[in-house]
Amino acid sequence: MAMVCLSDFEAHAKKYLPKIAWDYFAAGTDDCITRDENTLAYKRIRFRPRMLRDVSVMDIRTKILGNEISFPVGIAPTGFHQLAWPDGEKSTARAAKAMNTCYITSTYSTCSLEEISAAAPGGLRWFQLYIHRNRAASQQLVQRAEGLGFQALVLTADLPYMSKRRDDIRNGFRLPPHMKLKNLEQEFEVCKKSLMDPSVTWNDIHWLQSLTHLPIIVKGILTKEDAELAVRHGVRGIIVSNHGGRQLDEVPATIDVLAEIVEAVRGRVEVYLDGGIRKGSDVLKALALGAKCVFIGRPALWGLAYKGEEGLQDVLRILQDEFRLSMALAGCASVSEIGRHLVQVSKL
Amino acid sequence: MAMVCLSDFEAHAKKYLPKIAWDYFAAGTDDCITRDENTLAYKRIRFRPRMLRDVSVMDIRTKILGNEISFPVGIAPTGFHQLAWPDGEKSTARAAKAMNTCYITSTYSTCSLEEISAAAPGGLRWFQLYIHRNRAASQQLVQRAEGLGFQALVLTADLPYMSKRRDDIRNGFRLPPHMKLKNLEQEFEVCKKSLMDPSVTWNDIHWLQSLTHLPIIVKGILTKEDAELAVRHGVRGIIVSNHGGRQLDEVPATIDVLAEIVEAVRGRVEVYLDGGIRKGSDVLKALALGAKCVFIGRPALWGLAYKGEEGLQDVLRILQDEFRLSMALAGCASVSEIGRHLVQVSKL
Amino acid sequence: MAMVCLSDFEAHAKKYLPKIAWDYFAAGTDDCITRDENTLAYKRIRFRPRMLRDVSVMDIRTKILGNEISFPVGIAPTGFHQLAWPDGEKSTARAAKAMNTCYITSTYSTCSLEEISAAAPGGLRWFQLYIHRNRAASQQLVQRAEGLGFQALVLTADLPYMSKRRDDIRNGFRLPPHMKLKNLEQEFEVCKKSLMDPSVTWNDIHWLQSLTHLPIIVKGILTKEDAELAVRHGVRGIIVSNHGGRQLDEVPATIDVLAEIVEAVRGRVEVYLDGGIRKGSDVLKALALGAKCVFIGRPALWGLAYKGEEGLQDVLRILQDEFRLSMALAGCASVSEIGRHLVQVSKL
Amino acid sequence: MAMVCLSDFEAHAKKYLPKIAWDYFAAGTDDCITRDENTLAYKRIRFRPRMLRDVSVMDIRTKILGNEISFPVGIAPTGFHQLAWPDGEKSTARAAKAMNTCYITSTYSTCSLEEISAAAPGGLRWFQLYIHRNRAASQQLVQRAEGLGFQALVLTADLPYMSKRRDDIRNGFRLPPHMKLKNLEQEFEVCKKSLMDPSVTWNDIHWLQSLTHLPIIVKGILTKEDAELAVRHGVRGIIVSNHGGRQLDEVPATIDVLAEIVEAVRGRVEVYLDGGIRKGSDVLKALALGAKCVFIGRPALWGLAYKGEEGLQDVLRILQDEFRLSMALAGCASVSEIGRHLVQVSKL
Repeated sequence: MAMVCLSDFEAHAKKYLPKIAWDYFAAGTDDCITRDENTLAYKRIRFRPRMLRDVSVMDIRTKILGNEISFPVGIAPTGFHQLAWPDGEKSTARAAKAMNTCYITSTYSTCSLEEISAAAPGGLRWFQLYIHRNRAASQQLVQRAEGLGFQALVLTADLPYMSKRRDDIRNGFRLPPHMKLKNLEQEFEVCKKSLMDPSVTWNDIHWLQSLTHLPIIVKGILTKEDAELAVRHGVRGIIVSNHGGRQLDEVPATIDVLAEIVEAVRGRVEVYLDGGIRKGSDVLKALALGAKCVFIGRPALWGLAYKGEEGLQDVLRILQDEFRLSMALAGCASVSEIGRHLVQVSKL
Repeated sequence: MAMVCLSDFEAHAKKYLPKIAWDYFAAGTDDCITRDENTLAYKRIRFRPRMLRDVSVMDIRTKILGNEISFPVGIAPTGFHQLAWPDGEKSTARAAKAMNTCYITSTYSTCSLEEISAAAPGGLRWFQLYIHRNRAASQQLVQRAEGLGFQALVLTADLPYMSKRRDDIRNGFRLPPHMKLKNLEQEFEVCKKSLMDPSVTWNDIHWLQSLTHLPIIVKGILTKEDAELAVRHGVRGIIVSNHGGRQLDEVPATIDVLAEIVEAVRGRVEVYLDGGIRKGSDVLKALALGAKCVFIGRPALWGLAYKGEEGLQDVLRILQDEFRLSMALAGCASVSEIGRHLVQVSKL
Repeated sequence: MAMVCLSDFEAHAKKYLPKIAWDYFAAGTDDCITRDENTLAYKRIRFRPRMLRDVSVMDIRTKILGNEISFPVGIAPTGFHQLAWPDGEKSTARAAKAMNTCYITSTYSTCSLEEISAAAPGGLRWFQLYIHRNRAASQQLVQRAEGLGFQALVLTADLPYMSKRRDDIRNGFRLPPHMKLKNLEQEFEVCKKSLMDPSVTWNDIHWLQSLTHLPIIVKGILTKEDAELAVRHGVRGIIVSNHGGRQLDEVPATIDVLAEIVEAVRGRVEVYLDGGIRKGSDVLKALALGAKCVFIGRPALWGLAYKGEEGLQDVLRILQDEFRLSMALAGCASVSEIGRHLVQVSKL
Repeated sequence: MAMVCLSDFEAHAKKYLPKIAWDYFAAGTDDCITRDENTLAYKRIRFRPRMLRDVSVMDIRTKILGNEISFPVGIAPTGFHQLAWPDGEKSTARAAKAMNTCYITSTYSTCSLEEISAAAPGGLRWFQLYIHRNRAASQQLVQRAEGLGFQALVLTADLPYMSKRRDDIRNGFRLPPHMKLKNLEQEFEVCKKSLMDPSVTWNDIHWLQSLTHLPIIVKGILTKEDAELAVRHGVRGIIVSNHGGRQLDEVPATIDVLAEIVEAVRGRVEVYLDGGIRKGSDVLKALALGAKCVFIGRPALWGLAYKGEEGLQDVLRILQDEFRLSMALAGCASVSEIGRHLVQVSKL
């Protein structure tokens, strides 16, 4: 079967992954409404393409926090990559580096940060973290990441508790015994199942800042009010995210709240987005609505499940080609020409 | 099969109940548009969740008419519980008491008020009534309920006549001979099929007030005009209800008119809602739009049909867990933090 | 099978009528969008029912052009009733009289006006006509109808040409040889297939008025502009109609333009409606939006196909019962209490 | 099977064309959203038909750039007609001439311009072109077309690069070896696959004007901004087109942007449309929204696939009959009576 578009990789993963792993990656909370909305919402946005512009030389590069990437798509933090491919996050890191983009590494990786760094030295990586009940453990993780050359911290804000994902409950999902959360081995022995501290507040951003020189990005913001708070607390970036529809169900699709947040932020920090990106034209829409860059979650896992780092590169390359072509057909020769005028949004 | 969410109980009941009983409980009027809208309408409401709030200590208790309940979900009045479980309303009363919530007992119960009271002494119960052509019979019922410790009267306003429920007509639905409307045995012998008095008006609220010290709640209000009338006639609470889609078809979903009624009432009385609650997040939406508490009808029957009082407790516990988790993920640590800001509502 | 609602009669007719006859009655133009919209549009209208009103004595009678009918539903003009039942329009006339309502008799009847009149003497009937190329033939028809006691003329305005109904073309539909257009036998011999005069204009209303003392009603109006013209040309009533979706396709559902026309007419003439009525609550919606009476087309044919005049009475009786019950559940004890406040209409 | 409407021809073509050819003609870009929207958008437009107007004499002729055509439907430029019928574009030219309408001949024809001209001498034809990297080749084509009597140039503006059409990639679509792009044989040998020049801008319109006396029409405009630019650069007409949904996906349906463009142009040039026309009433809607004429793409190919020039004439004749009938039923006796008042448009 030819791998022509990202849904081909999805179909492949659904067919070849063990059901329990497919279900885990595919899961949304409750009725999975937000998970599905994340993709459907793009269908309500139409382009207003401009014709007869010189698009003979296309430049799709961008910068995030000052680092150039080959195109505005990075890898969102997702856990347990060994469920998709034996080499796990090491393959992810290699693919991201090969494609010259950013890989946000999850705390819940099945390779250690050290293994990941060694697999793709010099690659642009950010480290995703939760603040744990055991603050010392969190502090240690932050400092390990900084020491290993990760260039930003991404604090996930939308998981004070794990949500209810029905299929995982039915399947009795748990990591297979031969896989480990390599970054948390010690900690897990102590307080299984309740690592995350649900008492975390905005003030803890200051605590994090006291531990590290790395810029802090907050992930999981869905309202302008929280965006304003994030800016005031000194974060350097915001990832508009609903955790892929895996936390509170029936929150809006991320693309549907992006414009509200971009407007609230008024350029003071960079705004990114994850959730629902399946085509190059989705990337173009997100950028038209103000995102500096987007991140892919499940599609990266489908790529891994197809052929490890090679499969993930295929996924990224398809998105890159589609993005470049969409830009050209919309009349934009460089990322700086993309703007709000390119799209019209239907109300729900 | 694991019972993970309320639709699991629905599927179980559909499979194991006699068709005629399932159809009776499931029935809506005419084309069942309102019945289905009651649940669909929740899908048009999106949360605006707030992040990084301290949700380590969750308090989901509330009070209705001054009585504390463990969470803002009670049991709506539905008839004929023996169709679902041999012990009928006695099991319902025991489950409600065990879960520390309110059970609105229907006039059309297959256990007598006395049996129900004896089954779960001290439980919080309200008594649902119709005003009958035979006013003396209604008076007697009110006074029996008051004597037995019921703490409020719930007058159903939307049933001057029974509506047309096609499946019940096709099935020739009637109560099996070994079940009885225990509270109405004498009366039924006299005037079968026309107990309800279609001449009842708002003035009859005053007549009811003259019979009892109990607070009166009116159930079946769908417009701000009637909400205003209810307040003016001295009721203490309003249940926004369309009788589960079982009376006039093609009235709005209850969640769609809740805000209009809450606004009209301006805090003078408590506003409750029934209809369409299937998940903890539905409860959160109703509270965000101003309900003090919601009541479940069919899901309680599915719980009974599964395992009697134990099954109903399962249903209530699932809703409780889901409600608590939804609150936390939306950034609310107590019921008092829930407000209109938490939701955005799409127009039809 | 129990005949509980009108769709039961539809299913029966679809099963037992010859396909060519079923297709002819069911046909809409082109893609049948308007035909289907006629019924779907009612689903977008919600009731705002009022509670605790005295509905113990229900009065569902109304008057059209001064004549009392038992409830605001009459029989719309449709052709070829012998395709549905051997006695054809004679049965229709008997059923309408038995139910004390109005029967608009089509020019294209398979019984003659004389036969129809003799079958149900004294029944309230209006005569539907087209203006033919052969004006003398039209004049003769008008005068025959007046002589036979028909009490109004209903001029169909939306058929300058027959529309394109795909199934009829595929089926090669034509009347079976043993059936005749009894009112037009002579005329048909002269100018088959082009009876209707496509040059007719509003001025021809004056010509009609010169031929008869009967009040003239115009059928097929869908815009306020034409409603205004109708009033100015002295018609006594307007039937908002799209010919059951059988003329220009993709015009609005009749219920969707009713309010616009009622508003334009400002009470100067009576406004009626046909198209899409399938339940008593549909009748209530049409009256709430300003119709004085509605007329049923296909459902009358399904009734005939079921059991002739008895079947049609069943259909009318079901509508009558449903209408009365809907009124009561909406809080109206008489037709005069029905008004615009009863409904809310969603925009398309 | 009777060929009653255009979808009959579609079904026939899908059944009898080789899959690879059907897929090529049917293809849209990416998820084919715009391709499907092109037809669906018409369903959201309703007529406001006027009654009792004299429609006994119907005149459906119109003029485009001063040339009279028998009705406002021409043939849009599509490539590779020999995939549909052995005689290819020669049959297309004959059918267009027989029906007295305009055929926009594609650069990518499988017959040469000379063969096409010889097949139907004197027919009204416009020549569609791209500006190629090899400007001399473009110049030669323009001058050949002018010499052969083509009466306008149609510059396609929306194809700086070919889009991504998944089915063609999966099928490995390429022209069968016995078919050739007759107009480009030499050129293709030089620079296969990259003929089109993506650096073309509005200034190249002036270059084109310097080569020819023919009026220039620009095809592929979807915004008022580009419409204004087109007028300012001296084009004589605009074809509102999204390339049948074959270039940038998720741009609006053409009928949805027509009014915006007509308004921007303010009558300074003629505005045409292609995309989604499947019924005579679609033509009426496009004219009501301001198009001077519409062009059909895929339906012409289905007609060819059915019976060559005879099949294409069937398609045109059906559209012509349907258009005339729709006009009459809407109350318009000539094209000049069609206007914005005839339609109401629902917002998405």
